Amino acid sequence: MHKFKRLPRHIGIIPDGNRRWAQNKGFEKQDGYEFGIQPGFELYSLCLELGIEEMTFYGFTVDNTKRPSLQTTAFQKACVDAVECLANRDADLLVVGNTQSPSFPKELLPYSKRTRFGEGLMKVNFLVNYDWNWDLNYSVKNSDFNSNKNLVKGIASSDISRMDLIIRWGGRRRLSGFLPIQSIYADFYVLDEMWPDYNNEQVYKALEWYQDQDITLGG
Amino acid sequence: MHKFKRLPRHIGIIPDGNRRWAQNKGFEKQDGYEFGIQPGFELYSLCLELGIEEMTFYGFTVDNTKRPSLQTTAFQKACVDAVECLANRDADLLVVGNTQSPSFPKELLPYSKRTRFGEGLMKVNFLVNYDWNWDLNYSVKNSDFNSNKNLVKGIASSDISRMDLIIRWGGRRRLSGFLPIQSIYADFYVLDEMWPDYNNEQVYKALEWYQDQDITLGG
Repeated sequence: MHKFKRLPRHIGIIPDGNRRWAQNKGFEKQDGYEFGIQPGFELYSLCLELGIEEMTFYGFTVDNTKRPSLQTTAFQKACVDAVECLANRDADLLVVGNTQSPSFPKELLPYSKRTRFGEGLMKVNFLVNYDWNWDLNYSVKNSDFNSNKNLVKGIASSDISRMDLIIRWGGRRRLSGFLPIQSIYADFYVLDEMWPDYNNEQVYKALEWYQDQDITLGG
Repeated sequence: MHKFKRLPRHIGIIPDGNRRWAQNKGFEKQDGYEFGIQPGFELYSLCLELGIEEMTFYGFTVDNTKRPSLQTTAFQKACVDAVECLANRDADLLVVGNTQSPSFPKELLPYSKRTRFGEGLMKVNFLVNYDWNWDLNYSVKNSDFNSNKNLVKGIASSDISRMDLIIRWGGRRRLSGFLPIQSIYADFYVLDEMWPDYNNEQVYKALEWYQDQDITLGG
């Protein structure tokens, strides 16, 4: 087991590259998603062992659902499987996304309120049918808004805390709408490997880099 | 002159590392800022030559003004000098920041509305005494808000368009509150060199990388 001087409290995960991985293997694009479930579970187990307090996985977005239906069905199923795989462990689970739309998988409705399993050792959040604009505008429809007059407090993802570190697989150096408020001070680490090629060494590399960064929170 | 397959329409600039540069040279921290003005002008000239349509410089934030007053005074002066240096060229200038606070330099008040100089060949935006929370919450105080009910349209920085590429000097891989809405789909390129060590080759490296990225806007 590696030792670190300093660990992030909350890690955000952008598990990108499933379709490119599938194509490189000679599969159809949509076949990549199911190979992303086991990596998610390995990463969760590693973070639990390290004592990470909170993790957020970028599942799929409303924009993603404009893709061909074979792909949409495949990533919806992968998200349901990934969440249900954790539902029987020691996670404190929350799914955030627009539950009003038909693209939101019904199986995940019970988790749109935080649900504690087993010892609830780690907060694990999944963004499912998420949309950054919907998230930020959520407070307008919220009755609390007129009292606190601060949009940021009333966003749809307000139960998800500030992220310290975001790790993105698949080589792209951008946030792609991932929690605009919680990512503001996050350190951003990009791995060139595709998500289905996950291994723990990649996370150790990210954490070794992270421990030497300073924390200023904009100050 | 380099040729590129594809150029960003709008480039965001995070000119970080002035204080570390000064310390490495044996100067006081606050002495670094004045060495950041000439690089800004060189970068502007290069982008103008390349035909970039819009640039946004991250000047200073409300959080930054909590630093020792010697530093605050130094970066305020550097921002005023940088803006005034462009005011006599062919820029379409805009300064965005909280003008209601004493930390906003009075000399820059005339530019808090977009001001065209010469041929106004490029939109150049400076964030001065900027605060992401203030930016996002601006619409609440805005009379248009009740009609359009979309916070994102009424933000304080709504005259600044979506960024395609953000280049950060000084090695840190984070956004530090830089325009949360406009940075959502931006590609993010980090240079290890400190900002006062600017040279055009650094920008060419960023643009060479950028031309090979795909554009999906979350799709």
